[in-house]
Amino acid sequence: MAKGSCAILRGAFSRMSQGASNIERYNFHVNKELRARMKGQRPCIVWFTGLSGAGKSTIMNFVEQKLSQQGVHTYALDGDNLRFGLNRDLGFSDADRVENVRRAGEVARLMLDAGLIVLCAFISPFRADRKIVRDAVGPDEFIEVFVDAPLDACMARDPKGLYAKARQGKVRYVTGIDSPYEAPESPEVHLRSIDAPPSVLADRVVEQLKSAGVFGV
Amino acid sequence: MAKGSCAILRGAFSRMSQGASNIERYNFHVNKELRARMKGQRPCIVWFTGLSGAGKSTIMNFVEQKLSQQGVHTYALDGDNLRFGLNRDLGFSDADRVENVRRAGEVARLMLDAGLIVLCAFISPFRADRKIVRDAVGPDEFIEVFVDAPLDACMARDPKGLYAKARQGKVRYVTGIDSPYEAPESPEVHLRSIDAPPSVLADRVVEQLKSAGVFGV
Repeated sequence: MAKGSCAILRGAFSRMSQGASNIERYNFHVNKELRARMKGQRPCIVWFTGLSGAGKSTIMNFVEQKLSQQGVHTYALDGDNLRFGLNRDLGFSDADRVENVRRAGEVARLMLDAGLIVLCAFISPFRADRKIVRDAVGPDEFIEVFVDAPLDACMARDPKGLYAKARQGKVRYVTGIDSPYEAPESPEVHLRSIDAPPSVLADRVVEQLKSAGVFGV
Repeated sequence: MAKGSCAILRGAFSRMSQGASNIERYNFHVNKELRARMKGQRPCIVWFTGLSGAGKSTIMNFVEQKLSQQGVHTYALDGDNLRFGLNRDLGFSDADRVENVRRAGEVARLMLDAGLIVLCAFISPFRADRKIVRDAVGPDEFIEVFVDAPLDACMARDPKGLYAKARQGKVRYVTGIDSPYEAPESPEVHLRSIDAPPSVLADRVVEQLKSAGVFGV
């Protein structure tokens, strides 16, 4: 879906140059490095991607609790939650999904700049859009967690009744059904979420973050 | 400009109901209260409004440094900086300004939820739009700082050369020139920015935050 992304970006940049003469970047003195030092942690974005029902938010919730118990300052961004606020003007067409992930990525970058460990759970089906977020931050600042579950398992779980609604024709643009999902090629963490309980899978993410020096060093 | 806001909101809500059957709010266990307790501060949004050149970002920068020296965890959101990222698809028409402030407010709410003292510098010329942000959070969570300077003084300062460009017809929709500014009626803090240096004005904001129990209690 690079096509969709590029169209959005082209729009963004052309409007940016149109409006750019009105704006100027302000460099505040308190910056990411100072905030990180104050907090004793290395800010990063931990991006959970996978089908609806794969377990992204559940695993992320465990990760956040485990980190919080160690005094790590996190924030959890969740696709559905953002759609009640910042992204409530967006639907589920390919173009709107691209914009959904673009805004999520921008918010994650701001939270990163604020010194936080930013946990993000977004289906984020298109590889090109995840790459835009990754490329926008430093090489050690984006940790992709692929929450991998077969569509059949996700449909059997169906925690939101989404797949049932799709079968009944009540919703469209459901990833895996009538909208594509492009799996990560080399995620930092690959979790097969039917193999172990969410809490155990969360431990694997926490270990990865610790070994990467995100906290506890 | 309530008209503009309402049109945007109507759009948002109609699309929300259209897409709402796909989404469900996820309640993460680590919440604002826990984060605030971990950090020993009371999260709030400190919203600086005023004309371009009035001194919003400069005063806010001092406020952030003073808070940071006291170990308070802040984040500074600035109108121009957001326009390089999240809001780079927006121009300066009334509708785009409404959307600019709506998104800024939503990001500020997320940062608030993350437990931060969120400092926001936005011209945010329309009263109705600032009220939307205020009404979306708790009664003690929105502190409006009116950075009040006569247009003449702002034009004389003109730190970004914006007014000069407006006079030359190179930019349009400049607040105070060909786009209106609606001053706050009862801001929590009213700073007349030609009366004192930015650092002294920043002290007034810091004192207000301390007396409101935002930190150091």
